[in-house]
Formats: sequence, structure tokens, C-alpha cells
Amino acid sequence: MNEATPRKPFHRLLLTGAGGGLGTMLRERIKPWADIVRLSDVRVIAPAGPGEEVMLCDLADRDAVLSLLDGVDAVLHFGGVSVEEEIDHIVQANIVGLHHLYEAVHKKGIKRVIYASSSHVVGYYPTTQVIDAGAPLRPDCIYGVSKCFGEALSRYYYDRFGIETVCLRIGSSFEEPRNARMMVTFLAHDDLVELVRCALFTPKVGHTITFGVSDNKTRWWDNRLAAHLGYAPQRSSSEFAERFPASSVRPAADDIAATYQGGPFVLAGPIYKD
Amino acid sequence: MNEATPRKPFHRLLLTGAGGGLGTMLRERIKPWADIVRLSDVRVIAPAGPGEEVMLCDLADRDAVLSLLDGVDAVLHFGGVSVEEEIDHIVQANIVGLHHLYEAVHKKGIKRVIYASSSHVVGYYPTTQVIDAGAPLRPDCIYGVSKCFGEALSRYYYDRFGIETVCLRIGSSFEEPRNARMMVTFLAHDDLVELVRCALFTPKVGHTITFGVSDNKTRWWDNRLAAHLGYAPQRSSSEFAERFPASSVRPAADDIAATYQGGPFVLAGPIYKD
Amino acid sequence: MNEATPRKPFHRLLLTGAGGGLGTMLRERIKPWADIVRLSDVRVIAPAGPGEEVMLCDLADRDAVLSLLDGVDAVLHFGGVSVEEEIDHIVQANIVGLHHLYEAVHKKGIKRVIYASSSHVVGYYPTTQVIDAGAPLRPDCIYGVSKCFGEALSRYYYDRFGIETVCLRIGSSFEEPRNARMMVTFLAHDDLVELVRCALFTPKVGHTITFGVSDNKTRWWDNRLAAHLGYAPQRSSSEFAERFPASSVRPAADDIAATYQGGPFVLAGPIYKD
Amino acid sequence: MNEATPRKPFHRLLLTGAGGGLGTMLRERIKPWADIVRLSDVRVIAPAGPGEEVMLCDLADRDAVLSLLDGVDAVLHFGGVSVEEEIDHIVQANIVGLHHLYEAVHKKGIKRVIYASSSHVVGYYPTTQVIDAGAPLRPDCIYGVSKCFGEALSRYYYDRFGIETVCLRIGSSFEEPRNARMMVTFLAHDDLVELVRCALFTPKVGHTITFGVSDNKTRWWDNRLAAHLGYAPQRSSSEFAERFPASSVRPAADDIAATYQGGPFVLAGPIYKD
Amino acid sequence: MNEATPRKPFHRLLLTGAGGGLGTMLRERIKPWADIVRLSDVRVIAPAGPGEEVMLCDLADRDAVLSLLDGVDAVLHFGGVSVEEEIDHIVQANIVGLHHLYEAVHKKGIKRVIYASSSHVVGYYPTTQVIDAGAPLRPDCIYGVSKCFGEALSRYYYDRFGIETVCLRIGSSFEEPRNARMMVTFLAHDDLVELVRCALFTPKVGHTITFGVSDNKTRWWDNRLAAHLGYAPQRSSSEFAERFPASSVRPAADDIAATYQGGPFVLAGPIYKD
Amino acid sequence: MNEATPRKPFHRLLLTGAGGGLGTMLRERIKPWADIVRLSDVRVIAPAGPGEEVMLCDLADRDAVLSLLDGVDAVLHFGGVSVEEEIDHIVQANIVGLHHLYEAVHKKGIKRVIYASSSHVVGYYPTTQVIDAGAPLRPDCIYGVSKCFGEALSRYYYDRFGIETVCLRIGSSFEEPRNARMMVTFLAHDDLVELVRCALFTPKVGHTITFGVSDNKTRWWDNRLAAHLGYAPQRSSSEFAERFPASSVRPAADDIAATYQGGPFVLAGPIYKD
Repeated sequence: MNEATPRKPFHRLLLTGAGGGLGTMLRERIKPWADIVRLSDVRVIAPAGPGEEVMLCDLADRDAVLSLLDGVDAVLHFGGVSVEEEIDHIVQANIVGLHHLYEAVHKKGIKRVIYASSSHVVGYYPTTQVIDAGAPLRPDCIYGVSKCFGEALSRYYYDRFGIETVCLRIGSSFEEPRNARMMVTFLAHDDLVELVRCALFTPKVGHTITFGVSDNKTRWWDNRLAAHLGYAPQRSSSEFAERFPASSVRPAADDIAATYQGGPFVLAGPIYKD
Repeated sequence: MNEATPRKPFHRLLLTGAGGGLGTMLRERIKPWADIVRLSDVRVIAPAGPGEEVMLCDLADRDAVLSLLDGVDAVLHFGGVSVEEEIDHIVQANIVGLHHLYEAVHKKGIKRVIYASSSHVVGYYPTTQVIDAGAPLRPDCIYGVSKCFGEALSRYYYDRFGIETVCLRIGSSFEEPRNARMMVTFLAHDDLVELVRCALFTPKVGHTITFGVSDNKTRWWDNRLAAHLGYAPQRSSSEFAERFPASSVRPAADDIAATYQGGPFVLAGPIYKD
Repeated sequence: MNEATPRKPFHRLLLTGAGGGLGTMLRERIKPWADIVRLSDVRVIAPAGPGEEVMLCDLADRDAVLSLLDGVDAVLHFGGVSVEEEIDHIVQANIVGLHHLYEAVHKKGIKRVIYASSSHVVGYYPTTQVIDAGAPLRPDCIYGVSKCFGEALSRYYYDRFGIETVCLRIGSSFEEPRNARMMVTFLAHDDLVELVRCALFTPKVGHTITFGVSDNKTRWWDNRLAAHLGYAPQRSSSEFAERFPASSVRPAADDIAATYQGGPFVLAGPIYKD
Repeated sequence: MNEATPRKPFHRLLLTGAGGGLGTMLRERIKPWADIVRLSDVRVIAPAGPGEEVMLCDLADRDAVLSLLDGVDAVLHFGGVSVEEEIDHIVQANIVGLHHLYEAVHKKGIKRVIYASSSHVVGYYPTTQVIDAGAPLRPDCIYGVSKCFGEALSRYYYDRFGIETVCLRIGSSFEEPRNARMMVTFLAHDDLVELVRCALFTPKVGHTITFGVSDNKTRWWDNRLAAHLGYAPQRSSSEFAERFPASSVRPAADDIAATYQGGPFVLAGPIYKD
Repeated sequence: MNEATPRKPFHRLLLTGAGGGLGTMLRERIKPWADIVRLSDVRVIAPAGPGEEVMLCDLADRDAVLSLLDGVDAVLHFGGVSVEEEIDHIVQANIVGLHHLYEAVHKKGIKRVIYASSSHVVGYYPTTQVIDAGAPLRPDCIYGVSKCFGEALSRYYYDRFGIETVCLRIGSSFEEPRNARMMVTFLAHDDLVELVRCALFTPKVGHTITFGVSDNKTRWWDNRLAAHLGYAPQRSSSEFAERFPASSVRPAADDIAATYQGGPFVLAGPIYKD
Repeated sequence: MNEATPRKPFHRLLLTGAGGGLGTMLRERIKPWADIVRLSDVRVIAPAGPGEEVMLCDLADRDAVLSLLDGVDAVLHFGGVSVEEEIDHIVQANIVGLHHLYEAVHKKGIKRVIYASSSHVVGYYPTTQVIDAGAPLRPDCIYGVSKCFGEALSRYYYDRFGIETVCLRIGSSFEEPRNARMMVTFLAHDDLVELVRCALFTPKVGHTITFGVSDNKTRWWDNRLAAHLGYAPQRSSSEFAERFPASSVRPAADDIAATYQGGPFVLAGPIYKD
């Protein structure tokens, strides 16, 4: 490809966590947006195809992260730990690693980051309450606490340097809902791609927090504070209604996982070393 | 029917007020949800069909109410006075009777009540204001005041004993709108059934207040605080737009009934004995 | 006294519940405001002194209440049940009786009522939350639910007929705090008198809800929505700080009475007949 | 036409600014609503057709305005200055002229005005914030400030005399979006007509402020406070998505016009005489 | 005075409306803040004393205003019409004149204006409601509407050019309260001076709206959104409590002036020419 | 001391960061609250006196922290990094170390932590805005971001295990204000002690966030959401008014440190390694 004559909106996009579930899916879908998609992960991933670059990178390695960001126009940060783990892993990937990422973004003059936050930053709200992005944080696990750190860090880099970030509080993004709770939290892959597209192409985003969900019937999250992104989900968990009929899932009165928006995550942590 | 092998979501549902307008309609529609539907009213109603039980009951009769609740899994409470009447009738049915009902629910260990409240608990808001379920109460008649009592009583039983209630602030639930005001307040029977279904089957509801309206164009009530119920109306008063065209209904400046959301109810009471 | 030449702000004030704890105290303190203070209770009280009238009255007796209100300029309604009791007593006094009272107020053309509501209409808020008068009701006992009825009924009479009411959500009004919780809820008698005075003499009050507390250091209730009453408490539970030192009252983690603003009231009810 | 037997909802509607872009369009569309449409402008417009009256009028001419309002049932006020100009022009048309208009409305006993306000009364909000009609004013030009005056003046005439006004904060109402910003602010002509119809025919409107936008995907303005108007846009800028693809419009970091909702208007003024 | 060695915080302050009631009072009190106080009015005022300059000026005269602002460091704008008058006078002084003032402030590079707005921008709120600076405008007269214009214009100049303004919504600033209403709205001269001082000397004020009242017992206005000004009133209408005892002022039920915060102003306008 | 007969409210309190500025001060003041005060720091501190224990401890050492918490009744956590430093130091002390602390608190069954958070978690709010504890986080440095982590982590431990924390967003706690900004942010030592006392002895605190400031005239932080703590500051920066007179501190228009509540901290970071 002749880099001197870019024909796509971006010249080079970086996708971290490219080997993960969402990363693998996004890898295919974001190709139309950039001449070159740079793909990164801490583990080996499929080799680069046309219009792709692969750079393995441990986010905890500061110099490697600085190199990783070289020549990048915008970052889709889906890397890091995405489930409850021991604190050390979370700290290295989601805290130290994220700081390295923003340090590099700042030094390289990059202007926008799409940050995969998580609905687990508010997972301790009860399932009987509807919240918006202004509600105080109530994380449901240490992993969720690390995402609170990420939202705060990205806010700081916006206030300090004008680096724009859209924090995506992703619900449950799979091919289809896997249990009754996901009928509420489901984010279809198509809708995730559209949300990332909105976050990337909206002319100005400042520091925006948005919930990543499809157009499901039952809603815990009111997205009106992010209406400026223009995200309009086209998919719904209703497509799978017959698999998890409401009438089959009445939980016991003391079913903690049905009581909080975070579901089973509220019982997942903390994971102590011994 | 062999009660030992229930195949429906609930074994026994109780529907009070089964002889009223909404009760008669619901009687048919809720059959798929329970092996047995127990039907109650203070007046004689059609005899029990298959999967039905009929138990006449005056809510003011404490012992009768206790018996009525025996073996019940959940309650759809559509009984009581539903229009402006003398205070004595309202007190016996909607206050003393409701207390008997919750006492029995508590004693029998029942876990959920669907309570037919009314939009008349907020009927004194002007028609130029849009409110949600957090707005302070402004009842438009003594009947409406009794429904305020019911919402408070059910809140108490939730905070005190964990008994869940969904309060349905029903607008105007008829076959079709009967006047211009009902173009705003119309709740189609189909949508009422769906709302009751959501209230009954959502895994956790805590104490939820929701407005019962169809997807009408003009809205006074913003239901976003109850989005966790997953209620999505499929009907609209627009189906009847030609009967009550907006252009035909300009009221006089001093038309009180057009000024308040409660419409003619604001002038209906109070009814003193003499 | 020559009734043709009144020299005090009001000609005749009615104080109901005049034989209760607060009524007995108020009886002395409100004398300067009216030529005649009519005193009422369901039980025998001290005989009328100069400038006083005594009329025993059961609020559940409709005709008696109508007579009681004859010739009255404004009502201080401290009558009714003020603790958790069986539902029948509460209904007769606080619901049927209150309706009789407002019916009579309406028929007699009286323009203002000071209504002794209670902080127990919001007693199920946790002691770690600060609320104002706009917070949704969370009563902590059936008595509290009956006061919710009263607030709604008085709101109705204001919207319907312009009869003004100030609802006083009284905390704990005694000579002095009797336990650690009352260090927060204490309303000194002097301050109650001042609050009643503000409620009675403020030119326009509409329908106002205000919390009745002294200037205590720890506060659960933010009174700013009632700042138009001009109530400025002069007393504080701090005067009694040494009796209930904060350091002596750390409750057990599962101490329900310390968890909710209503304190022991949350466990007081409901009282069933048998 | 026989004026004694009106068959349309209104007998005579006045449309000011009838020669402007929106006025010319509305002239055709509002005919079904009135026996007679009186058309006014400061400049010569097309002669009156059937059911039309043309009265040229300078809003700054007090007597002329008084005559203009004679016999009118309701006013659609689209006259005045609608872009940034010298202060003198704006003052004469939008401030003095508007006062003349309301004085005449008051004297003639007219009960409703549809006032073409502008989204430029809030144009200095950033494009990354979503607001509703309760947000404090932040005009983006002197023209916008004059519209703030108009909203305040109409509020006064409502509180003082009960004259109802709907303020339409119109976005960009053209045949189609003309630039990327208008993908957010676009108000299709069809939708403007529908919004005017709602504002005119809703039985009671009090003083309502509503945003005039189509059902565009990206939204800066949340219209829920005006849901009582029943306005449901049927058009969307998405129809023109291919002309202004999101991916083509990434602005420079210091692009002021992309930073604020007012777009280039924020740089348009103030226009000083020399 | 040797202008090269200023020893006071400001070199030259401009006080407009210096011949009015508040202007005359302020003239003496602000001397310590500036080497030179320039005094302006449309009518003749007392000649300049030491450290004073007098420049008569009609605010409607654009060139004169430009000269008036020459060499000025900050402006205390107390000029213009301050009561209900014919629209023409109000427009010339408070709208055209104010625009001239801000044009000159902009051209001369002045950085801060203290703008005498008025509580009459919200005078149509009922006396039973407590508001803060975020409440939508509800002016009670045309004069009040002109002050709404001023608040919007000053907001624009802040957003557009960074010119800071503090809008003082002055209540009733006299030597002492003159009637019962002023017991609520009283702003003692000492407190006005202190408020102006805070507005002038707080390092950053942006565009701040604050209510100008003393520490009166009854409050309609909650000033917490302006707490960053550090204004702490030291005076109170309570000093004059015996003159307007609350118990003497019970108004008739239909007393409009007691119903709205604006008092008699709500009936003062509009003043039409004939 | 005979540990079997404790005579003070607590048997053993732990104070971390005991060698720091605030720790050294608190060491003396908290003695009356506990039989034994355990003092900890990463650096050598003054040896234990009567009723004291000294245990040096690096918070990053997990086993050491577990030992440190042994036998402790409540924790005053003033340890960790309290200024902007390199990310590694901050991560070890304020993130990894804090997690160790809460892990140990959990394992040892301790019920309450007083956590020294910082006003720098909201330092990027402008000095012209007044916020309360519900405002979204806007940290002004990486140190501030680490305190955001701490607030989120402590919230999690409360929701998950019921461990109560009071987060103190301390302003500037020194003997006296050191510059003009501290006239706003000053927290006198006496008031800090009182705030810690309230946080420690209030019977129930749940998870409370409170601002630590004295009763200064200028306020950026509204503490009403924490009124249940009963904190009433007795000191004020006004005692030092003559040292930093408001009139001496007018900053340049582009003075960043005067623009944001965080003052010079907004420019302090981030500190990269090279």
C-alpha cells in the first residue's frame, strides 16, 4: 500500500487486545476505516493480512507501549484483563499498562481513544433501579474497580491535555445472550461495531461515558447523556426471547446474582492470592 | 388437574376485582400464566371454568381475606373502589381492605403483588407538565388519595418484609379512547396485559411505580424510572386519531378538566354524605 | 372577653389533641396568638381557663367535628393516633377523622391548617442518607402510612379548594433527647412553638412540607425547600451532648434501629389484632 | 368565503415573516387549518390567493402591528431578524417589534402565539453535552440573545395574562441538510409543519419551550419536557447520510465551529457598526 | 494623584447610575478600592471629589459610552431604568445602552463587569417556592424582562470573549425594609457593598448569577450555586422585626402581591403608551 | 495497661502514615479515643509512648499489612503517597498498598476505615463552580486519579462486605493557609480532628464521601450530602484574612492555577520517568 496516498478515513488505527473475543471480531469489522490496522496483544494472534500490522506487546512494558503507539492516529483499547483475577494481574494490565498507554498517546500527539470500560463499574446497583452515566460509581469486583481507575485516568488526560476518550461501558457482548441476565445486558456484535464507529467518527466527543447495550426491552441504563454520539442500536435481545423466557427465571428471594446489575460478578471477587 | 405437577409458571394466581371491567378482561388473558387462577369479587361473577376458582370476598372482612390468600403464589389486586365515592366506601375497600390484603400476604408468605394504583394520584399536575414516578403526589380526588395510601402501604411492606409490589398507575384502560383526553391517557387492553406480565415475571422488582399507558403520541408521563420492567407498549391511541382529532378539541380558557391531567376527576369530589 | 373587639392576630384558633404531650405544651404557648383558643381532645382535659374553650370530640364523629370547627379561623391539628397501634384505631382517627376535619374546614371556609405529620413518613431511609421534602415517601410503620395519607389529603384540599396546609414532619419533640437517636431528631419545645408560629403567620404557605427539628449537629433532613417559612431553630440537642456522647453508642452491625432514620419504629409494626 | 360559517378549526390565523424561507413554505401548508390565513412581512410578498390576506407591516410600527392583529385567532410569529445583524436591526425587529406584537395580542384578546425562537439561545453549549429545555440559556450571538428576550417576554405575558406561547427552538430547517453540523440540527419542513400543528392544536400549552428537530440519529437536545405537545417527527437527516458521511468530517482540534452546538454562529457576531 | 504609582487594588473603577439611590450610596463606599472612581449618570450628579471623575453619559449614545469606558479597569453597572416604565425608555437604557456598554468593554479590553440585575427576573415564582440561580426565568414586568436580556447578553460576552460578569439579582436594597415583603427581600447597604466587593475581588468569577439579599430569616432564594463568591451577609431584616411583625400581615386569599415573589411589581406593567 | 478492662471507646486504633504532617498531628489528638493507638509508617517515626505501638510497614508488603491489622478495631488510613510522584510509587502505595489494606481489613473482620482521600479527585472543576459529593470525578493529577481508585475500592468493600468507609476529601490541612487559594481550601487541624471524630463515632456511616474544609467564607464544596456525620467546623480561614486579602490576588486571565479548584496541582503532573 502506498502510505502517501491514504484513501480511508484514518491512516493507522491501533486495536489492542486484538486476540480477545471482541478484538477478534473487531479486527475484521474495522478494516474499512483505516489504511492500516495495527493489531496488538500480549499473546500470539493470527498473522497480519493485507492492510494489517501485528505487534505483540505487554502493556506493562513501558518502552514497548511507546513503540506500539508510533504512527497511530487513534486507539481502540480493548486490551487488558477483562474478568476478575488476582490483583497483581489487574494492576499490571489495567492500571500500570493503561497509564503507559496514555503516556504514549500523549507523547505521540494522538487525539482520541476508545476505551473498553465495563458495566461492572456500576454493577452493584440493584436490578430494580435505572441509572444514567452521571450515577456515582458502584463497582462489583476488583476488575470493575480497575475500570473506574481507567475512566478517571482518561478524564484526567482530557482535562489536562485535551485527549478525547469515549468510555464504553460494555454490557455482555457475545454472539447471543447466554443466560437470562444477558437479555438485559446484551450488546450484539453489530451494535458494538456501530458504537465504536460513532465513538471514533463523531467530530467532537470530549470525555464521554456511554453504556454499550443493544435495543433490549428491559433496560437498566439510560443512555441519553451520550445522545451526541448518535448511537442507534439495530439489534435486540428480543431476537432470542424464546430461549430465556421471562417466565422461567424467577429467582429465589435471596439470589444475589439476580439482585444486582452485575449478576454473578458481584460474587466473583475479590480473588486473594492464597 | 394434578396440582402436584404444575406446568405453568405459577401454580395459583389471585385476581381480585375479577368482576370489574379490567378484571373481566384480565380473567381470560392471564390463564396461561397459572395452573389455577383464583377469582375474587365482592359481587357475584361468572362461575369458575377450567383452571379457575371463584371465591366471593368483601375486602373489609379480615378473616375472609386471610382465607382468600391461602395457597396463592402472587396477587393481581384490581379490587376495591375505582371511582370517586363517599369516603366510607373508599375507606373500607381501599384502606382497611388493602391493609387486610397485605396482612394476609405477609402471613401467607406471598412474595409479590401487582397493585392497580391510578394516574389519579398525580391528576392535579397540569396538562402542560411532564412528570416521572419521582414527582411528589398530587391526587385529584379522594379516590386518588386512597391510592396514595396504597402506594405508601405497599412501600412499607417492601421495606419491612421484602414483599415486592409493582404499582400500576393506570391511565384510561378501555377498548378504545372515549374522549379527547383519553388520547393521552389511553392504555389498550393488550398493553395492560403486557404490563401486568412484565410486573409479574421480571425477576426482581422491589417496589416499583410505573405509569400504565400505551405508546400514545402525547405524553404526560415519562416511564424511564421503570425501564427495568421491560414494558414496551405495542398499541397507541393514534389508531383512533380520526375520532378525536386534535383540531376539534380546543377547550375554553377556563376549562378546568382540560387544565389538569386528571381531567373531569378533579371536579368529581369530594363526595360528602349529605 | 368582648369578642367584637379582637386585639390578637386570630380570633379563634382550634388546637386538637390538646391533651397530648405536645398539645398540653402548646396550649400555654399559643395563647398570645388568639382571643380564644378552642381546645379539643377525645379524652377529658383540664378545664378551660381565660381565653379558652374546651370541646371534647371524637374525630371519628362527623357531626361533632363539624360543630368543632364552627367559628374557627385556623386549625392546629395535633389530634389522632401518634404511635403504632392496631389498624382500626389508626383508620378511625387518622384517616376517617382527618377526612371529617378537612370536610369541616372546607364547609366552614377555614383557610389554613397546621398538620402534625411525622418524620415517620420517611423513616425507612437509612441513617446514612440526607433527604429533603421532595424525597419519595418511605414510611416505617402503619402510623407513618396514615400520615402519608394525611399529607396527600391535605395536598388535595389545597389543589381543589385552596385550603393551605403546612405539614410538620416532627422528629422527637420532648423536653430533652431521651436516647442517642434523638440527638439527631430532637425538636425542642421552643422550636416547635416557633415552627408552628411560622407556619401560622407566614402570609402564604400553599401546601408546604417541612421537617420539625432543632438546630442539631447531625442532620438527616435538609429543610431548604421550606425556607420560605422563615423557621430558624434556636435550640440544639448539643445542649445535651454529654448525656449521649457519640463515642458511647456504636451499635452492632445488625442493629436495625440504628440503620434507619425511623429508629425503633421500624420494628414497631404492623400490629395485627391477634 | 362566507365568514359567518367557518368550517375550519380556526377562522383567521396570522403568519408573520410570510416572505421568509420558512414563511413561504408554511404559507402553503397551514391553509387547511383556517378559513383565512393573514400573511405579513416587511417586504413585498406574493399576492393573496383564495383564503389568504396579505398585510405588509413593519413590526417596529406599533399602530400597524395593532391593526395587523385585528380579528386574528392565533399567531404564528416567524417574522423578525433571523441571522446575526447589527444591533439596531435586531432591536427594532426582535425586541421592540416583539413587544408591539404581544401588546397587540393582549389588547385583542388573542390566546395563543407560536413563537419562532431558535436553538441559538443555547448555541454555546458544547457539542459533547446533551441538554433539555431546563438548561440555563447560553446564546451564541446577539440574534440569539434577542431570542432569549423573546422567550422571557412570552413567559411574562403568560404569567401576567394567561396568553399561551410555544417557543420553537428551531434547529436548521431547510429542504435538506447543507453541511455536517446540520445532520444533527436538521428539521425537515414536514416536521416543522407537524410541530407547528402540535403547538397550535394541543388543548393547553401554557408556556412551553420545545426544540425543533427531526428524528436525527445524533441528538444534542432532549425534548422530553415538551412531550405533552405530542410532537413525533417522521423525518430524519439519516435520509441524507451519504452526503455528509461521519467519516469525512473530523475537524481540527481547534475548530471552534465544531466545538459548540451553535456551529459557525458562535463566530458570527457581534456585528458592530464600524 | 500620581497615576504612575497606584496604591489601591484598582486604578480606575467605573460606577454607572452613580446618581441613583444605590449609586449614591456606593459612591462613598467603593473609594478604598480604586485610585480613581469614575462616576457616570444621565442626570447631573454631585461634582467630583478627590479620587473621583464625573462623566455624564446617556447609555443610548454609543460614542459617549465608548469614551466613558476609556481607561477603566472594571465596571459596576448600576445605570439604566430600574422600575417599570414605557417600553421605549427601557429599550434605550437597558437593551441598546447595555449593548453599547458591552461593546465598549470588549473594545477596551476590560475584563470584569458587576451587573445590577434584579430579583424581578424571577418575580413570578410563588412566595411558597424556594429557588436557586438555575431556575428558569419568570420575570414579573417588562423591566424584569430587560434584565433577562442583560443576563443573557453578559453570558454571551463571557462565552464569546471571556469577559467576566457577576449578575446581582438585587432584592430590596434600602436603608431598611419598607413593608412586610421586604422582610424577605431586604438587602442592607452594608451587605450590598460586601457583595459587590466579593464580585469584584474574587479571582475568577466566570459568569456568575447571585441573589442579593441579607441574612433574613425567611428566604425565597438559595444562593449555594454562588458560594464561590464568598459572600456572607452580616445584616438581617430581623433587626426591624418589630416594625413588620409577621402576625400583622395576613393577606387576603386573592392578594396577588403576596402571592408572587415580585410583590406589587407583578401588577406594575406592562405600561403601554396610551 | 490492663487490656482486659478497656475504658476508652476503642481498644486499638490504627493510624497509618503516622509520620506524615497530618499523621504527626493526629497522633497526639486521637489518644483519648483508644486504649492503644497503633502507629505505622514506611519511614522511622518517634518511638511509642504510653498507650502507643509503633509498627513500621511498607503498604506494598502484603504480609506485613496483614500483620499490621491484627487486633485493630478501626483504621485511620493516612498513609501512602500524598503528592504527585512517578506512577510506580503511586501504584505501589496507593493502589497495591490500599488493596492490601482492605484485604487485611476484610480478613481481620474490621468494620470501619477512615480514608484520607483528597479534594484533588475533583480538582479540575473550575473555581467558579460549586459541587457536592455527587458530582462526577475530575481528578487533577495522577495522585488524584489514585484517590479515585481508593474511593471506588472502598465503595466495593462496602457493597460486598459491609465494611464502612468515610472518604475524607481533604482540602489544605496545615497550621494556617499558605496562599490565597488555601483561603478557600483550608482545613484547620482542629477541624480535621473533629471530622475524623465524627467519621469514627457516627453510629452508621455506610460509604460516605465528605469534603474536609473549615468554615471558610468562600466555598467550592457543598457538604450537605454528608450532614449525617454531624461535622460542624469551628475554625475558618477568615482568621487569617489579613495575610491574603482578596484584593491582592487578582490573577492573570490565563492563570491556570487560579482557574481550577486543584490550583497548581493541575500542572504538577503527570510525572514521567524520563
